[in-house]
Amino acid sequence: MLFAVKMDVAIPHDMDPDRKTETLAKEKAYSQDLQRGGEWVSIWRCAGQYSNISIFDVKDNERLHEILWNLPLFPFMTMDITPLATHPSDIRADQG
Amino acid sequence: MLFAVKMDVAIPHDMDPDRKTETLAKEKAYSQDLQRGGEWVSIWRCAGQYSNISIFDVKDNERLHEILWNLPLFPFMTMDITPLATHPSDIRADQG
Amino acid sequence: MLFAVKMDVAIPHDMDPDRKTETLAKEKAYSQDLQRGGEWVSIWRCAGQYSNISIFDVKDNERLHEILWNLPLFPFMTMDITPLATHPSDIRADQG
Amino acid sequence: MLFAVKMDVAIPHDMDPDRKTETLAKEKAYSQDLQRGGEWVSIWRCAGQYSNISIFDVKDNERLHEILWNLPLFPFMTMDITPLATHPSDIRADQG
Amino acid sequence: MLFAVKMDVAIPHDMDPDRKTETLAKEKAYSQDLQRGGEWVSIWRCAGQYSNISIFDVKDNERLHEILWNLPLFPFMTMDITPLATHPSDIRADQG
Amino acid sequence: MLFAVKMDVAIPHDMDPDRKTETLAKEKAYSQDLQRGGEWVSIWRCAGQYSNISIFDVKDNERLHEILWNLPLFPFMTMDITPLATHPSDIRADQG
Amino acid sequence: MLFAVKMDVAIPHDMDPDRKTETLAKEKAYSQDLQRGGEWVSIWRCAGQYSNISIFDVKDNERLHEILWNLPLFPFMTMDITPLATHPSDIRADQG
Amino acid sequence: MLFAVKMDVAIPHDMDPDRKTETLAKEKAYSQDLQRGGEWVSIWRCAGQYSNISIFDVKDNERLHEILWNLPLFPFMTMDITPLATHPSDIRADQG
Amino acid sequence: MLFAVKMDVAIPHDMDPDRKTETLAKEKAYSQDLQRGGEWVSIWRCAGQYSNISIFDVKDNERLHEILWNLPLFPFMTMDITPLATHPSDIRADQG
Amino acid sequence: MLFAVKMDVAIPHDMDPDRKTETLAKEKAYSQDLQRGGEWVSIWRCAGQYSNISIFDVKDNERLHEILWNLPLFPFMTMDITPLATHPSDIRADQG
Repeated sequence: MLFAVKMDVAIPHDMDPDRKTETLAKEKAYSQDLQRGGEWVSIWRCAGQYSNISIFDVKDNERLHEILWNLPLFPFMTMDITPLATHPSDIRADQG
Repeated sequence: MLFAVKMDVAIPHDMDPDRKTETLAKEKAYSQDLQRGGEWVSIWRCAGQYSNISIFDVKDNERLHEILWNLPLFPFMTMDITPLATHPSDIRADQG
Repeated sequence: MLFAVKMDVAIPHDMDPDRKTETLAKEKAYSQDLQRGGEWVSIWRCAGQYSNISIFDVKDNERLHEILWNLPLFPFMTMDITPLATHPSDIRADQG
Repeated sequence: MLFAVKMDVAIPHDMDPDRKTETLAKEKAYSQDLQRGGEWVSIWRCAGQYSNISIFDVKDNERLHEILWNLPLFPFMTMDITPLATHPSDIRADQG
Repeated sequence: MLFAVKMDVAIPHDMDPDRKTETLAKEKAYSQDLQRGGEWVSIWRCAGQYSNISIFDVKDNERLHEILWNLPLFPFMTMDITPLATHPSDIRADQG
Repeated sequence: MLFAVKMDVAIPHDMDPDRKTETLAKEKAYSQDLQRGGEWVSIWRCAGQYSNISIFDVKDNERLHEILWNLPLFPFMTMDITPLATHPSDIRADQG
Repeated sequence: MLFAVKMDVAIPHDMDPDRKTETLAKEKAYSQDLQRGGEWVSIWRCAGQYSNISIFDVKDNERLHEILWNLPLFPFMTMDITPLATHPSDIRADQG
Repeated sequence: MLFAVKMDVAIPHDMDPDRKTETLAKEKAYSQDLQRGGEWVSIWRCAGQYSNISIFDVKDNERLHEILWNLPLFPFMTMDITPLATHPSDIRADQG
Repeated sequence: MLFAVKMDVAIPHDMDPDRKTETLAKEKAYSQDLQRGGEWVSIWRCAGQYSNISIFDVKDNERLHEILWNLPLFPFMTMDITPLATHPSDIRADQG
Repeated sequence: MLFAVKMDVAIPHDMDPDRKTETLAKEKAYSQDLQRGGEWVSIWRCAGQYSNISIFDVKDNERLHEILWNLPLFPFMTMDITPLATHPSDIRADQG
């Protein structure tokens, strides 16, 4: 089951630099584990923004929540979440 | 070069039914041609909305404009366009 | 899998009265069938608004889309869709 | 009398960790007491958000205010409140 | 139980003049009946706007909905509804 | 001359508790003096919000400004101000 | 007593040309009468917009409403109204 | 004196096709005359939108208004206007 | 050349009181100098708001920017700027 | 390939003055290098705002992102990015 998620990041300007470095490293490792596991299908940087657009393929809403809630940067993110369905014009799905 | 595009569709309630059927058929054929050609990479229906989220892979802004401007449903669409770049956490791009 | 959906209805002022009556009757029958089937869990009128807040329990995003897309009033509705997960304070879910 | 309430939580990043742990524990106990008492009918987590959607069944506006105002997390919440009425399509209410 | 309601009116420019005159007369009679009955406590014109701010005193949400839904101008109105409670500084309520 | 004013309050989380207690006491006394004097006609709590909706009856804009500007909580408030006029359906004003 | 009013005009595209010409002529005459009478103190065109910003000097809210409500273009206008007071830096008012 | 202007175009769906063709031809000729005269410095299409971003170099606000107000498509446009000044980092202006 | 400017002021709650007093005194002197010089034509307080609406008469955009950028309160202000032109109904301008 | 970018700057009020001076000097040098290199085509100050509107000419989205992400003021900026295409009325492009 697919979801599009836009994540806008706003790290506080006074965050301790070591904590920031550590959090960003954890975020990257966390994301790459989920990409290798197949649940975080795509991640793109929005050009010129501290934001990404991602596609997730998860078994249900509970799993989507678990993944996003445990992002190391979650406390500094604003999320926009869109549940996706098959589009009737999609050549991979269209039989007619 | 990738772009994420969200298209919201609002067909006038008084549109002639035959013209509507014909326009929708043209829209589908137009989209599927571009999908087969590799420029319209993905298209998903936003669940419960007359909207889609699509990924385009085009050579430049001119080509993106040409594709969208010529959509049969273009006069009835509101577009939200995000130029995309490689995300440093993307396992397909990350070398470090 | 649960979703909260807010539906705002805007029927055109010049809609044919017979068509309107028929559409509203179909909408009611359609909703009540899904309520009896257990997928449309709750429906409340937003007091003083031509709007409702509903809870759906469906197997996936595809089914949610199918249900909403086929609403007889769908062309006249604006949808706001929120995927839901278990809240850790929910006494029905909390074991700890 | 029913109300739908959406609560968005924004805990300050520099809150003392012990005070935060204590406040969250109080919030959970407070919510579960009201759930057991029947006034806080439902609570769901909005997937991927630090937000919940809740249904309250209270005797009047005064009681709704008293419950929300005394939430331990109230100073860190943004509330969106919708008074609810019976929907004419609700199979539990419809006699016709 | 009190509610503040702001009603913005947008009558279609092509409404039949006789129907408009009749609807406005019905609206006035309907409002004045409820004012005399004590449920529509106050009504003020927002200066320079086709809008009013009103205070209602009703027994519950169901009754508020019934009153607003049956306004002759309801199909042409946008509603903003605020449930009210006693303010602790109100001299009519404060005992302490 | 009447005005409706909605006041949203946002007290900084790190305000000194004694200063906060003192400011709230001054705010209450200030409001009640103006209520007793007849200029602050009504004050209601917006249920579930740190907000109020108030009606003022003042001689002119200058006096409205003087009253609001000197509120002890003014620096922490967002104001929404609506000048009011007589509504033609108001039974207290209507002669026709 | 002063008010700043921004008026945005949106005349329907299908308005009868003669009615439009007549309405615009009435609007101009109406405005100029009030300018000569001293109540419509200033009127400026917002450059590049079908909008104006005006200053009114009226005895109270009732009179402001009466003037705006009777504008020949009122049904096609969106109003933004700001009650004004003396600014403490105004050299025409400052004595200190 | 420079201005940035974003123009969003929304031509009514039921506009007569001949009138539409004629209006678009007039718009193009009008724009190109002003480009040749040096006042309409730049015009770009916003990719995928029926919008343009333009730079104007005019002697004052009056002239900017005159140019925009007389656009053949003006009745169908929404304008966003930004007066521009020299940026201190501009290499063409910076002497320091 | 005229501009309407709305300035909303938000002074940080933890600003040093002496610095605040000094900044406000400088702001007043700066404004009054420009009023006496004829460039800051009018300034009004928005009733009940920490905001003003002002009219400037300057020779070009560069001068407007220079005046606003150097306001002692500029770092704490949000600006809304509208270039103004002559209105065809203005009795001071209308010859027809 | 052209992009229009609007950058709004919000430097924290408590930033160390030396760090601020140094950051602004780096920003200017960084911008001017890119202007000399031809990628940062134009930069204008939005009059009366701590904002600029810029035109970039870059080979692709990746390069646009690289340029903006490395702006010394990037952590304090809000970006609005519009990909541009040739306008059919542009006299420099129009052959027809």
